[in-house]
Amino acid sequence: MCSNCDYTIHGRHFHYGWDNTFEPAQRVAPGSTVFFECHDSSGGQLSAKSTAADIAALDFGKINPVTGPIHVEGAEPGDALKVTIEGFEPSGFGWTANIPGFGLLAEDFKDPALTLWSYDPATLAPSAFGAHGRVPLKPFAGTIGVAPAEPGHHSVVPPRRVGGNLDIRDLSAGTVLYLPVEVAGALFSVGDTHAAQGDGEVCGTAIESPMNVTLKLDLVKDARLRMPRFSTAGPVTRHLDAKGYEVTTGVGPDLMAGARHAVADMVELLAGRYNLNPVDAYMLVSTCGDLRISEIVDMPNWVVSFYFPRIVFE
Amino acid sequence: MCSNCDYTIHGRHFHYGWDNTFEPAQRVAPGSTVFFECHDSSGGQLSAKSTAADIAALDFGKINPVTGPIHVEGAEPGDALKVTIEGFEPSGFGWTANIPGFGLLAEDFKDPALTLWSYDPATLAPSAFGAHGRVPLKPFAGTIGVAPAEPGHHSVVPPRRVGGNLDIRDLSAGTVLYLPVEVAGALFSVGDTHAAQGDGEVCGTAIESPMNVTLKLDLVKDARLRMPRFSTAGPVTRHLDAKGYEVTTGVGPDLMAGARHAVADMVELLAGRYNLNPVDAYMLVSTCGDLRISEIVDMPNWVVSFYFPRIVFE
Repeated sequence: MCSNCDYTIHGRHFHYGWDNTFEPAQRVAPGSTVFFECHDSSGGQLSAKSTAADIAALDFGKINPVTGPIHVEGAEPGDALKVTIEGFEPSGFGWTANIPGFGLLAEDFKDPALTLWSYDPATLAPSAFGAHGRVPLKPFAGTIGVAPAEPGHHSVVPPRRVGGNLDIRDLSAGTVLYLPVEVAGALFSVGDTHAAQGDGEVCGTAIESPMNVTLKLDLVKDARLRMPRFSTAGPVTRHLDAKGYEVTTGVGPDLMAGARHAVADMVELLAGRYNLNPVDAYMLVSTCGDLRISEIVDMPNWVVSFYFPRIVFE
Repeated sequence: MCSNCDYTIHGRHFHYGWDNTFEPAQRVAPGSTVFFECHDSSGGQLSAKSTAADIAALDFGKINPVTGPIHVEGAEPGDALKVTIEGFEPSGFGWTANIPGFGLLAEDFKDPALTLWSYDPATLAPSAFGAHGRVPLKPFAGTIGVAPAEPGHHSVVPPRRVGGNLDIRDLSAGTVLYLPVEVAGALFSVGDTHAAQGDGEVCGTAIESPMNVTLKLDLVKDARLRMPRFSTAGPVTRHLDAKGYEVTTGVGPDLMAGARHAVADMVELLAGRYNLNPVDAYMLVSTCGDLRISEIVDMPNWVVSFYFPRIVFE
């Protein structure tokens, strides 16, 4: 709950995918603070009793329900929706899955797999991974966006110019996000909450976790943004960086291939060093490893680096 | 100078490009500590009196001389060369250039441009940019590598599996780098020292700065690395992150295009906000802005984000 919010949007006001003809769940004035009950990306199909068999049985027609849409009075195409991310009310349950056909190393990891997480929603202390790992948490909403102008129904999976399934780890409490508005009222929705994720979300899922979210929605008239942008309130990796990083690289003429090389080498390194099943190492690094582009100018070869925070095991 | 080094490799022992027939400047036992006098990437063609006209006149046959090579006794193909980066002795002078035809936004910035930097090599206090900016410094060697097995002479510009022009910002003091050895003796060289760089090195140059480097060279026998990897001693962005970041994004099916979008939007944002010439903003962000891959799995669109540290202007 949120004592100083103007509105609560209950979890029953969800939709699948994006469509600018969806009826608003609420109309609000610019400057309103709104409390959203958000579903996890399985839409409740997975629980603390789930197994890898439940990954194989997922109904993909029901993934990633988002809560909304909110019609912001006066929003017009060309404006930016200014979303101040005020806070999260996490649930304490989470899951990470390898979903066949999805993820950066889908060719290497073809079988469904599941990691379950339990964490203290009050302290957000690092969540245990196996006997020796602990993954630092930083909640955020994986899917946050407004309706596209293009008519029809659009899949929730790809992010777009108007946001959506951005999966940007630093859209956490204190960050201010600006989204390009394409339709009258903006039609804002949010969901797919994550307790932790590394840059890249390399296995395709984060620590997926149902959570409530408090946001302030405001307008910047005629901002003419090309793409989403955001401002963080402070540092973004201090929950991860205290012990330094192990880093693998991919060097070559294709950034995607470089990212695959770097992640595959890290999975091999961690699986060997900590005696992990490779698919478990793959799911782990998706929750806390960061993909960075070290150089993108030394023709014809670029360097993509994958940073694993040693604090997880130290 | 280095009072506890085993060898000093003077700056006259440099070479252009890579060739495994180059005569070693020194043969050393594994575990040796070596002090290298390194040139900047212009090989001394630029100085504190240079102008953009000197960028147009650069002799590209003489760029990026590296100091070496060092033959490490007992190194064989399949081993890893373990390079412990002990420290830097910076010069206090630096430059950043937009070189026509080179850099992520080469199509947008076709004219030569030059930024000159002066910094205190003892304190490494942030270096002034214009009237209001200050760029935090963290020295590293942009080019660090061993000779490739492939016969012949190879350009210094692209990095390779054996390292070279990696331009990885976090190869700074305290980091341990592992390089795949492809020829007997490894034939290690280093140069292209930078006082500061953002991940991506987006304009094509960093704060290019002549500097001396102390490294310990050791072997890991039969390591069978596929690509370079490294371990950092601690956090990697705390010199940048205290005030948070402004972040622009590029959303779409191509990582390279996404990176270009994100960087172009940041250049426009900073040029507008701080009344900068766009090419000056472009050179600035190359020294301190970080390219990250926020998600690489939400088919068919990926998100590349460009992080500009607000501490530069706050």
